[in-house]
Amino acid sequence: MKKLTLFLFIFFGPTGYSQEVPADAKEAIKAIYTEALGQQQGYQWLHHICTEIGPRPSGSEASNEAARYTMQMMLDAGADTAWLQPVEVPKWHRGDEWSKAYAGGAPISLPTTALGGSVPTPAEGVKAEVVEVGSFEELEALGEEGIKGKIVFYNTYMDHSLISTFNAYGGAVKYRWAGAMEAGKYGAVATVMRSVTLLRDDLPHTGAMSYGDSEVKVPSAAISWQAADKLSAMLEGGKVELELYLDCGVQGTATNYNMIADFKGSEKPEEIMLVGGHIDSWDLGQGAQDDGAGCAHAMQVPNLMRKTGYQNKRTVRVVLWANEEFGLDGAKEYARWAKEHGVHHWVAMESDGGGDVPRGFGIGADDDRIEQVRTFKSLLSPYGLHVFAKGGGGADLSPLRGYDNFFIGYRPESQRYFDFHHSARDNIDAIHPRSLEMGAASMSALYYLLDNLD
Amino acid sequence: MKKLTLFLFIFFGPTGYSQEVPADAKEAIKAIYTEALGQQQGYQWLHHICTEIGPRPSGSEASNEAARYTMQMMLDAGADTAWLQPVEVPKWHRGDEWSKAYAGGAPISLPTTALGGSVPTPAEGVKAEVVEVGSFEELEALGEEGIKGKIVFYNTYMDHSLISTFNAYGGAVKYRWAGAMEAGKYGAVATVMRSVTLLRDDLPHTGAMSYGDSEVKVPSAAISWQAADKLSAMLEGGKVELELYLDCGVQGTATNYNMIADFKGSEKPEEIMLVGGHIDSWDLGQGAQDDGAGCAHAMQVPNLMRKTGYQNKRTVRVVLWANEEFGLDGAKEYARWAKEHGVHHWVAMESDGGGDVPRGFGIGADDDRIEQVRTFKSLLSPYGLHVFAKGGGGADLSPLRGYDNFFIGYRPESQRYFDFHHSARDNIDAIHPRSLEMGAASMSALYYLLDNLD
Repeated sequence: MKKLTLFLFIFFGPTGYSQEVPADAKEAIKAIYTEALGQQQGYQWLHHICTEIGPRPSGSEASNEAARYTMQMMLDAGADTAWLQPVEVPKWHRGDEWSKAYAGGAPISLPTTALGGSVPTPAEGVKAEVVEVGSFEELEALGEEGIKGKIVFYNTYMDHSLISTFNAYGGAVKYRWAGAMEAGKYGAVATVMRSVTLLRDDLPHTGAMSYGDSEVKVPSAAISWQAADKLSAMLEGGKVELELYLDCGVQGTATNYNMIADFKGSEKPEEIMLVGGHIDSWDLGQGAQDDGAGCAHAMQVPNLMRKTGYQNKRTVRVVLWANEEFGLDGAKEYARWAKEHGVHHWVAMESDGGGDVPRGFGIGADDDRIEQVRTFKSLLSPYGLHVFAKGGGGADLSPLRGYDNFFIGYRPESQRYFDFHHSARDNIDAIHPRSLEMGAASMSALYYLLDNLD
Repeated sequence: MKKLTLFLFIFFGPTGYSQEVPADAKEAIKAIYTEALGQQQGYQWLHHICTEIGPRPSGSEASNEAARYTMQMMLDAGADTAWLQPVEVPKWHRGDEWSKAYAGGAPISLPTTALGGSVPTPAEGVKAEVVEVGSFEELEALGEEGIKGKIVFYNTYMDHSLISTFNAYGGAVKYRWAGAMEAGKYGAVATVMRSVTLLRDDLPHTGAMSYGDSEVKVPSAAISWQAADKLSAMLEGGKVELELYLDCGVQGTATNYNMIADFKGSEKPEEIMLVGGHIDSWDLGQGAQDDGAGCAHAMQVPNLMRKTGYQNKRTVRVVLWANEEFGLDGAKEYARWAKEHGVHHWVAMESDGGGDVPRGFGIGADDDRIEQVRTFKSLLSPYGLHVFAKGGGGADLSPLRGYDNFFIGYRPESQRYFDFHHSARDNIDAIHPRSLEMGAASMSALYYLLDNLD
């Protein structure tokens, strides 16, 4: 696939941008998928990250080990430069955590996990009557009279009727983020919530919460779906007390690293095509889906180009961000540095939706650019890529908004994602190798096509 | 959703058929998905079939138990009639099975399973030198001189570069079906093959084979992917002997049953909209993906209509066929009976591709009809249904070809399917409840739209 420019089809489509697709684009894309599905290099990298390194929470040494490992892998794959960018992050600590419900008989143990950022309980735990609410409106209606001195139980759900589970997540996660802050206003002594998941199982799911500017900080935990069912059923029978113990909290700061690897472009090296995922994870699982998969995807983008003999014209930059989960510190630091150095990101793509089969892309750009990308549909739909939606890019690209103007978010199938998300289930066996590699190839194929646009 | 005909939009599209879509189609379809994803009734039925009944091979009592159970479930769901149609089927027996490879050192045990229809080995097993081939061409080139008295090892692969794993299966399964027949011609004493799967694991996968009209019948087995890797590596080092023991075979016939349930149409009851899956499975697993999922899908089609208040105009008939895997006996018997009674299938749909998320449908009909179905795309693509391909219907619909002329095959995502297919891994935990229900709702939504066409 050398000298591609000699064989370009150039035409002007329905957009303000010219359309240029290499004459051998179909074969080049097929080669990218074949390489990905045969060698499964992304899966091998991810397997190492998950099983040899493991959970990579904010402030952990494991996050740094993963940064060093991926830097070496990128150099081995032919990166021209690769370096580690220091980022100051909060150091998250989790120790023992449990809860027991009392309603007259023997206490019932409920699978429990502290939300990320929660203060610990006192050493003797907290024990108080439980009051169940289904929304902030119900909380407000109960007021201080109904809440004070009690443990608030947010029995809130992701909306199962939404086909995009990310939309369902968006509707439910406010209770995780702000539940303790709101309940604290009315004198609650702690909060627990139904885990933000769609799988009706018995594992709790963690995730970030915030006290905002509040002086009042009450311990905040998630319980499993089945535990929430149990607790709610017990409450139908009358008064229930909950005993909650959480040993957790932020313990100062530590240095983690963004991993940044450049595969230099042959014609426009100063135009950066950024592709990334976040290298940190929550601490309960190996962070296979969130976001080891995105790291493997991003690393495969230039690797698949090089392995299939394609020389990128623009510079393909892989960025694996530190601490997305607990404050976006890595993304903010990268954006600060990029602006300071006047880096021009021609496009930036993120994968932070897991490793399931491809559905498409979200595109955050002006309408002409979106139409231009949509002209690739006929080349990409044979690989299951049918969605080319307006609006794209994820959390780690958000600090670049306003500075750059062409973002892409990879969109895999989302049905299974929240089964694993932020739980002890998010391990390497949650990853289907072929599906992961289909995603890597999809992202690489799109970047190959974009690299050939003016 | 009563009196729908009062609110029809009627127009003539680009096809020879009129297009009629109820005014509240969008809401009706949303209701179908919401019911499926909330109640997950299909998953509950499938859970019972897998865990309370289990594997349902040809000739088994379990197949009949599943027929009785599903008949009762259909009556409970409001079927007007439901009955069991007797089908004479071969009775498949599987006992102990194993193989060991010898290359000088200690023997290496290889995970092994008899192919369906294989003759057993002698009671003392067979032990012979192994000769590896990668194709029938290589077998032919070796000829009697290279084959006679040996065990042929088909080290053949599904093509990992094909995006549709069903296409990859189609290319590899000929070695399972005809491998023993072909090797027998050259005097082989047995055959083993690399399992027909894409998962690089250590479980063998069975499936039907045939001796055709051949008098020579040599025992035929599959070994796991990893065992095939091992055996091939041993052969690179020199001569390898394999000892194979298979206690298996067809032991006469037995009676199994097709389950047939009708949900009578209010306006055109004589026009049948058939929807089905096959109730039998291979014997190594619970038959969750193949084809318990298809049975659950089919049963949900009328159930979701009724649960959302839709009264079908045509009769929706659920057929769960006996013994697809080992000769299509149930499908042949149903087709024979239908022709004898002049049954008019206005359309017939099959689900036999597993329970993963929806991708679309294959449509076997004249071009105008296909275009007509494609006009539903805008209503169905929000649910992940983007593929409306020409050519559809599956194995169990094949006996109706030439008699009827409008077939549909449901097409779920195929990446994971052959990980489970015909192996001990095909159990209820291979099923993702939401994904299964998305399929059921997709099929029900399509039948709702079709029911409103003239």
